Amino acid sequence: MAKSKFEYVRNFETDDACLRNCYIVVRLDGRNFHKFAEQHKFTKPNDNRALGLMTRSARSVMGELEDIVIAYGQSDEFSFVFKRTTTLFKRRASKLMTHVASQFSSSYVFYWKEFFGEQPLLYPPGFDGRVVLYPTNRNLRDYLSWRQADWNTSRRQNEILFSQFDINYNSEPALHKKGTTLIWEKQDETVTKRMKRPDGEEEDVPVTRSRRTVQDYHCDIIGEKFWEDHPDILEHGC
Amino acid sequence: MAKSKFEYVRNFETDDACLRNCYIVVRLDGRNFHKFAEQHKFTKPNDNRALGLMTRSARSVMGELEDIVIAYGQSDEFSFVFKRTTTLFKRRASKLMTHVASQFSSSYVFYWKEFFGEQPLLYPPGFDGRVVLYPTNRNLRDYLSWRQADWNTSRRQNEILFSQFDINYNSEPALHKKGTTLIWEKQDETVTKRMKRPDGEEEDVPVTRSRRTVQDYHCDIIGEKFWEDHPDILEHGC
Amino acid sequence: MAKSKFEYVRNFETDDACLRNCYIVVRLDGRNFHKFAEQHKFTKPNDNRALGLMTRSARSVMGELEDIVIAYGQSDEFSFVFKRTTTLFKRRASKLMTHVASQFSSSYVFYWKEFFGEQPLLYPPGFDGRVVLYPTNRNLRDYLSWRQADWNTSRRQNEILFSQFDINYNSEPALHKKGTTLIWEKQDETVTKRMKRPDGEEEDVPVTRSRRTVQDYHCDIIGEKFWEDHPDILEHGC
Amino acid sequence: MAKSKFEYVRNFETDDACLRNCYIVVRLDGRNFHKFAEQHKFTKPNDNRALGLMTRSARSVMGELEDIVIAYGQSDEFSFVFKRTTTLFKRRASKLMTHVASQFSSSYVFYWKEFFGEQPLLYPPGFDGRVVLYPTNRNLRDYLSWRQADWNTSRRQNEILFSQFDINYNSEPALHKKGTTLIWEKQDETVTKRMKRPDGEEEDVPVTRSRRTVQDYHCDIIGEKFWEDHPDILEHGC
Repeated sequence: MAKSKFEYVRNFETDDACLRNCYIVVRLDGRNFHKFAEQHKFTKPNDNRALGLMTRSARSVMGELEDIVIAYGQSDEFSFVFKRTTTLFKRRASKLMTHVASQFSSSYVFYWKEFFGEQPLLYPPGFDGRVVLYPTNRNLRDYLSWRQADWNTSRRQNEILFSQFDINYNSEPALHKKGTTLIWEKQDETVTKRMKRPDGEEEDVPVTRSRRTVQDYHCDIIGEKFWEDHPDILEHGC
Repeated sequence: MAKSKFEYVRNFETDDACLRNCYIVVRLDGRNFHKFAEQHKFTKPNDNRALGLMTRSARSVMGELEDIVIAYGQSDEFSFVFKRTTTLFKRRASKLMTHVASQFSSSYVFYWKEFFGEQPLLYPPGFDGRVVLYPTNRNLRDYLSWRQADWNTSRRQNEILFSQFDINYNSEPALHKKGTTLIWEKQDETVTKRMKRPDGEEEDVPVTRSRRTVQDYHCDIIGEKFWEDHPDILEHGC
Repeated sequence: MAKSKFEYVRNFETDDACLRNCYIVVRLDGRNFHKFAEQHKFTKPNDNRALGLMTRSARSVMGELEDIVIAYGQSDEFSFVFKRTTTLFKRRASKLMTHVASQFSSSYVFYWKEFFGEQPLLYPPGFDGRVVLYPTNRNLRDYLSWRQADWNTSRRQNEILFSQFDINYNSEPALHKKGTTLIWEKQDETVTKRMKRPDGEEEDVPVTRSRRTVQDYHCDIIGEKFWEDHPDILEHGC
Repeated sequence: MAKSKFEYVRNFETDDACLRNCYIVVRLDGRNFHKFAEQHKFTKPNDNRALGLMTRSARSVMGELEDIVIAYGQSDEFSFVFKRTTTLFKRRASKLMTHVASQFSSSYVFYWKEFFGEQPLLYPPGFDGRVVLYPTNRNLRDYLSWRQADWNTSRRQNEILFSQFDINYNSEPALHKKGTTLIWEKQDETVTKRMKRPDGEEEDVPVTRSRRTVQDYHCDIIGEKFWEDHPDILEHGC
């Protein structure tokens, strides 16, 4: 059968499994987003609709890939951190990064209307991605600090921009200054359930259920506080 | 400044440039498309709207990345072949595959309505990708033959499916049997241009312009004929 | 000039730098050493001359590459651990492993006579190598424990072998049971130096100098004791 | 048993199989050979004993690894080319390059005396290696041309050196100008065998046997002639 004759080409695929016990970071960047922002009349220097859409798309990625323990984004970039012990897609770098890039991109178009209403999306946007590994908690935190510090540094250097738009950096909202951090949190929900009593009667009983949901923060992630408040994001003693 | 202290993390990124002078193939596969097809009531065993949308999305990718010399798809997968001498994104595998995955996915949602009309897209779909390198023309052609033969083989094996839907394999359209091949072709266009004559009068003059456009084929790409008809797809004598 | 025309081939070399902040382990294994041992009449199940030559060759490697913080060997294998922050050869895996393999092999032949005296070496032996990265201290210690435990396990399973040679496992020397661990240690040396006194007379004064030398141990490296006794081998808090 | 608890570290090893259907080149370079040459009083600018020892060591490598189809060396470097379809060591780059580096290095010490007689080898020398892949015959020939041209170019530029040693470049022997190329050749050997005739008598009969042996050349490998004379070195039509 024809199949067998050609199937040897399968062996040209090489294994790209990420080193074990390292955090796997996938970072996405918008392609030509300067132009995209202009064509879609984004407010300068920040457009809350665009930032909201980025965050919505990142939530969609986290919903699909539950081994992502934290995501951080600002402007037209978003970083997703897989837990160091993940075995998702056998840790294959190609699978992880393309799945993130794909899910993020389809979500960006899918949820566009929620944020931009009747303003049309003119063409399908592109995002590119990369994978970087971090062996220790310190390295990972420094990576996230780099993205947050880098963002603020380049923004502050841009004072002309701010003065031009008559904006005072310090009075800006946290969303603009700190970007968006997404993490999983357990939430207790109380629901009432109709249950049968020993005497055969029925009654409404309050039941507490725990659900994992994605929470967003617009706070400093460089200092210790955020990590002390959320000690379960990183794995310790590995 | 904070920036410098954290920036060392940049060096954890590793170089993933593809070996020179090899064809770079990026293949995308729909994630959980069996379920996706059911939820969106795709006609079995083939849905022309879905196949049309796949091809439309692949065209969008080719339009963005002109170094793709041929693309081949069937069902919920599409392969994109970059010319062996491409220097796009410095041949970085991560950039190439995430860009293809992202552009394809955002296009799939963007053009959904063109093919499915008022039937709503229920959620943003995902595609994953991989990169495979082929050193020679023979290896590349065998890869494409594998995808086309594999497709036909598994379909024929599925005779139960066909008989169940009361379809005779041989009388099926080429689109279903052969999948879709996209290549760049030069097309001559004749347009009329208003020009001034020596005597000062104006007249309409026909002008021929050559344009590169993406053409689609639903034919056999295993045999010699297709490649003899399109000798410029592959580079020779490298 | 001819040079420029061909020099493009240089770009086919790919970067193989090891991920930062991970321990880099190079392990060597003797090729066909079962046969080699027979041909050179090694004492069974252990030949002290052969073990001594392995250790001498490993010392030669450590002398050349000072970023190796610990080496462990038994039978015909030796593992070399580079400190996690080494920048030797820009962390290029190929350079690190070939240099270790080369230095070890040339040393094995060079020092043969020191251990085997007039018994001739019949042909040049071969060793092959590999590189493995370990992100944390725990992982690295588990690697070394694996090599030591594996060795003992396979040896104990070999009870027939021992009884055959009329050897009682427990009464064997530590060298045979525990293999050889090499680490750098500071040693104080007292030398006498002739110095001039304030009154113009000369006298011999004892002076203490500190030197780094390679020490060998034949002890358990699985438990805590060895690591508590030598807290500087591994880097902490990275 | 202890073994199982630690054995997970085995999974940190990553696959480094070379892309199929590419020539695999391992190049070795002497480490600090400038100093080594001085300490061992090598004749300048070429020492025939040293070149002979390099070639002897390369032959030893070829004898061990029969999938090497050609080797080329000059000065203190040697390149070994594995046939594109080799499956040796499952094409693992680490195994291939360390085995070459190891065998070459142990041979260098082993055969020292054959070339340097009573002049002692002062310490075990080191060689480092790398792996480079070439997808086509053109690329591979350009690699070999690069090494040969590069060698001649840098030597000619060194006219001062030559005039200093009172040597005229053109009158130098081919060994110095062209380096050494090693290939496998079939050689017919005629041996006499004593056989019984039909009449019962015995007689000596000449018998021709074919043997593969390594031949060395000191000729141009940039032009067509060498390759036309030896059409079987490279594989064609892959």
